[in-house]
Amino acid sequence: MTDFTRVHQEFAKQGLMRLFNAQLVSVAPGEVVIECPFAEALTQHHGYFHAGVLTTLADNACGFAALTHLPSQQTVLSVEFKINFLRPANVPRLIAVGQVLKAGKTLTVCEGYVYAPERQTLLAKMTATMVGVALA
Amino acid sequence: MTDFTRVHQEFAKQGLMRLFNAQLVSVAPGEVVIECPFAEALTQHHGYFHAGVLTTLADNACGFAALTHLPSQQTVLSVEFKINFLRPANVPRLIAVGQVLKAGKTLTVCEGYVYAPERQTLLAKMTATMVGVALA
Amino acid sequence: MTDFTRVHQEFAKQGLMRLFNAQLVSVAPGEVVIECPFAEALTQHHGYFHAGVLTTLADNACGFAALTHLPSQQTVLSVEFKINFLRPANVPRLIAVGQVLKAGKTLTVCEGYVYAPERQTLLAKMTATMVGVALA
Amino acid sequence: MTDFTRVHQEFAKQGLMRLFNAQLVSVAPGEVVIECPFAEALTQHHGYFHAGVLTTLADNACGFAALTHLPSQQTVLSVEFKINFLRPANVPRLIAVGQVLKAGKTLTVCEGYVYAPERQTLLAKMTATMVGVALA
Repeated sequence: MTDFTRVHQEFAKQGLMRLFNAQLVSVAPGEVVIECPFAEALTQHHGYFHAGVLTTLADNACGFAALTHLPSQQTVLSVEFKINFLRPANVPRLIAVGQVLKAGKTLTVCEGYVYAPERQTLLAKMTATMVGVALA
Repeated sequence: MTDFTRVHQEFAKQGLMRLFNAQLVSVAPGEVVIECPFAEALTQHHGYFHAGVLTTLADNACGFAALTHLPSQQTVLSVEFKINFLRPANVPRLIAVGQVLKAGKTLTVCEGYVYAPERQTLLAKMTATMVGVALA
Repeated sequence: MTDFTRVHQEFAKQGLMRLFNAQLVSVAPGEVVIECPFAEALTQHHGYFHAGVLTTLADNACGFAALTHLPSQQTVLSVEFKINFLRPANVPRLIAVGQVLKAGKTLTVCEGYVYAPERQTLLAKMTATMVGVALA
Repeated sequence: MTDFTRVHQEFAKQGLMRLFNAQLVSVAPGEVVIECPFAEALTQHHGYFHAGVLTTLADNACGFAALTHLPSQQTVLSVEFKINFLRPANVPRLIAVGQVLKAGKTLTVCEGYVYAPERQTLLAKMTATMVGVALA
């Protein structure tokens, strides 16, 4: 099982998370939470959070949730995901939660949720397939 | 049918496209192309383009391709999409192509492709469902 | 809100449910359960339930769950869905549960689950987008 | 590379294909075509082909297309797929085409198309992820 330190290290390597000013909020076995405050730089054409931002956060939450189940000599890559956008994301902050649904030998299937603050409103729902690959 | 000027206007409103330094390369009826050069700020944990960047570009290419088929008093929102990542995106530039597969009364289904430069290598493949909504 | 009688009527009209010998087990607001016993006629090349059977049951459970939220003069059609297969379906019976995640004005997003008997094992997970259309 | 005979053998093992009266029309490297005539037993609640039938045929066409790229000691399983339904399937026959988009070491990504007769009308579009597994 992966040391949670590795999740923090891998998160810190991602230029895109710094660009988004996103934070890794919590790491538990099979569950990772990421937050991201609103900024003009993260908007689509109506001034709300861009669907691509919600997707990126959910993808990362799912990927790092999968990583908590992988052996320490493996890293994680996204095979594919599907996401439904349920409500407009005109909110001051996004909370993305990734949870492992099924950890297999090769593939890990995860559920991703993107919430408005306080997790009272679900903005988007992802299902993602992740794969563990040997570290170079 | 939407004036292509509107696609350029909507693209220009997106803070995220400026943050990514992405350019709208071409707009034709039912097809939009977007490019984005590599930057450290757009990376995942291996130093490649983040899956979220590929996804955002494909989502936009699909959404704006759908917009070319919408009446001028409507704008476009992403209902959902699914994307498969086919090869690692360690390339100097991404080219995202969105194409309308089926334009219906309410929903528009699009295919999105993310290529390495010269379009010789397909890095990711998206299918997206878009909806036209009345402008506020 | 749709009378639950309509769900039973629509289910009864489906030739495919009779062919599968599937039963509508329960209908509640936003949740429908369908069961289907194993038969040689429902198998793939390893002799297990075919992925298409799991998918059909989940699609129907989701569609009829959506129908419980639609006005009585509308019927339901599948826009699209995505399904992950988590475990081999070598089981004596399938239980498909469809639940409404978000009921909008035009589109209803549902979660579908396919279980082995007693719902102790999740075999497949679907997310589906359904649309209400006026009855002819 | 798999002998095409194996595709015919695996297809013939599927009870569900006999139940549907579906035929394996052609097998080529990375492309498989399956047809299925209309029957009352294959309908949804409007009397058209059920979405589950289109999906099953597309899943099989994709899976067997993937099988043509797998080593002879492996068989194929569906990891996941997503399908969009583009037009109502009130047609006398379905033609499902599966094509390999990317054959990797572990996973094969395929595109599936379901057409009305003569392939003049696209009814549904699938993207599927397939996995090769060692024969028992």
